[in-house]
Amino acid sequence: MPSTRDPSEYVRSAVRAMRGYTPGEQRAGCLKLNTNESPWPPSPRVAEAVAHEVDRLPVYPDPLATPLLEAASRRYGVPPECIIAGNGSDDCLTMLFRAHLEPGDAVACPSPTYGLYGTLAEIQGAELRPVPYRSDWGLPDLAVVGARLTLVVQPNNPSGTIAPSDVVRALAERTDGVVVVDEAYVDFAGDGASLLPYLAEHPNLVVLRSFSKSFGLAGVRLGLLFAHPSLVTEYRKVKDSYNVDRLALRAGVAALDDVAHHAEMVRRVTSERARLGRMLTDRYGWSFPEPRANFLLCRVGPSAEHVYRALADRDILVRFWPKPELREHLRITVGRPADSDRLVAALDVII
Amino acid sequence: MPSTRDPSEYVRSAVRAMRGYTPGEQRAGCLKLNTNESPWPPSPRVAEAVAHEVDRLPVYPDPLATPLLEAASRRYGVPPECIIAGNGSDDCLTMLFRAHLEPGDAVACPSPTYGLYGTLAEIQGAELRPVPYRSDWGLPDLAVVGARLTLVVQPNNPSGTIAPSDVVRALAERTDGVVVVDEAYVDFAGDGASLLPYLAEHPNLVVLRSFSKSFGLAGVRLGLLFAHPSLVTEYRKVKDSYNVDRLALRAGVAALDDVAHHAEMVRRVTSERARLGRMLTDRYGWSFPEPRANFLLCRVGPSAEHVYRALADRDILVRFWPKPELREHLRITVGRPADSDRLVAALDVII
Repeated sequence: MPSTRDPSEYVRSAVRAMRGYTPGEQRAGCLKLNTNESPWPPSPRVAEAVAHEVDRLPVYPDPLATPLLEAASRRYGVPPECIIAGNGSDDCLTMLFRAHLEPGDAVACPSPTYGLYGTLAEIQGAELRPVPYRSDWGLPDLAVVGARLTLVVQPNNPSGTIAPSDVVRALAERTDGVVVVDEAYVDFAGDGASLLPYLAEHPNLVVLRSFSKSFGLAGVRLGLLFAHPSLVTEYRKVKDSYNVDRLALRAGVAALDDVAHHAEMVRRVTSERARLGRMLTDRYGWSFPEPRANFLLCRVGPSAEHVYRALADRDILVRFWPKPELREHLRITVGRPADSDRLVAALDVII
Repeated sequence: MPSTRDPSEYVRSAVRAMRGYTPGEQRAGCLKLNTNESPWPPSPRVAEAVAHEVDRLPVYPDPLATPLLEAASRRYGVPPECIIAGNGSDDCLTMLFRAHLEPGDAVACPSPTYGLYGTLAEIQGAELRPVPYRSDWGLPDLAVVGARLTLVVQPNNPSGTIAPSDVVRALAERTDGVVVVDEAYVDFAGDGASLLPYLAEHPNLVVLRSFSKSFGLAGVRLGLLFAHPSLVTEYRKVKDSYNVDRLALRAGVAALDDVAHHAEMVRRVTSERARLGRMLTDRYGWSFPEPRANFLLCRVGPSAEHVYRALADRDILVRFWPKPELREHLRITVGRPADSDRLVAALDVII
């Protein structure tokens, strides 16, 4: 009883036309300075916590990841009922897009920024309306879009810049829709960059955090969403029932509770960020906006793509986008001092 | 600059009205016979594999979970390009609903079945059109619905029954949309129940597998989707970029490769299923459809809810639904022999 359908023809009729998202390359055996991971291992408490949890793997995890919400509450001073855990902050973004958007709705963000937003909007049948950053990477007026969902990455990816929190709060105040501040990189930005302290004052403000950067846990997929409890109740309805697995949950609790280790990791990265920046400016004259994340958006000039490829040939991955507004730039993740030295040694040959 | 908005009022205007899904209770310290988890631990190779992977946690996982697809290909004889891994098979279901459904599209399934389908349809703005099972749990004609997506759980949840594979293949042949066979429980069904051998013959057939039941890994969230490569290409566009974390990926490979351990776990469950069934019939006169999964759907009669509550008072959880077609039934997961003995001791007191 084999089918007589032509498979490719069939698929065209059966699925919606979509483009999908292309994440940064994950080639093994390379120096990875392309996806903003931590060059340092997570808290040693993570390995212990994971080992303890293995015995419980036959049983479904807590659907709300309660112990993780309690750890986040201890750490950030936000009540657990204002928090949701996700399978990476990408999962939290999926909840937001599902809960707020119907086909035809508008999504606003500054541009250039995190490329996933367009993909998620397309999946939901919504329309992404990007507004270009000002030439000094100042936040453009996003309220004029009148979007149901407005997204700002703080510090921004790929520029590494931040908007003053007053500017973001004014945006929330002027916007009828929800304003999402994606703070994946905020731990590297210094004091005063986060919008978390203002959560209680703005019922339409949502803050996202990630464990993939400063906590060194990109491999476990863990993110947090902070919002007014009325919004959190709605987001829980559209999340996967058991979206955070037992091992990720325990890894997250261990990482959040080891405050000293986290502070030391952030100190190492911000210190190396300054040293790497000086080397790149002194040797090649590259400039970059004041870096507040764990990467530098270097203005390399017309040779950017050539440099990107020449580095890749030497097993050093950095990020390059062939878009008009970014094709003269490279985004370089801050690694360990030895990583910076290897990068510079390669650049000395290439340039 | 605090906002003057009333939060609850605001939320009503900002989010879509949705009901959400209620998973089975996950109360700690109970005998859990309510969510069809394995009473036995996973392969001992899982703990080893997880421990080895902890060092790699700072780095994002492989977006396609390639080593897991290769292990699944070895085990099931399906090419890796026909497979996608998900954060639980619920994540695979999300890909299917996203890829195929636009608002207003129809989703068909027999009823009663897995309750998540209605929630996922609602999230996508689609309409679930359940068709009642025949009185002998025979599969009703689902092709008449003309749905873009048709879902059949094989063996079905909560009945534990299977439809002959010829019936499911005939459904795929008569349906223009995609037919998804959710085989979360198929390892307990004996030979000939799976539709995987027929995948290549039906470009509109999709098969799902779960690691939460026979592999004892509900806590890691892992599922597999098998389909024609043209469909798989489309589903990859709508999945989260890094949906399967490093620890889950390694746990899955270890579990798939330990064929002997898996066979022994399935043997223990099916053997205990027979013993538990005999006890429930002999002592209480309960009947159930021929069980092909790791649970029994017992016809208890009008006292079903009372028995459910009395068991819960004794820290024994089974599943009860207050729906007209199920309110005289209890679904009881097959546990260890000692679990069955504890259940029966409690029932002897209650009944």
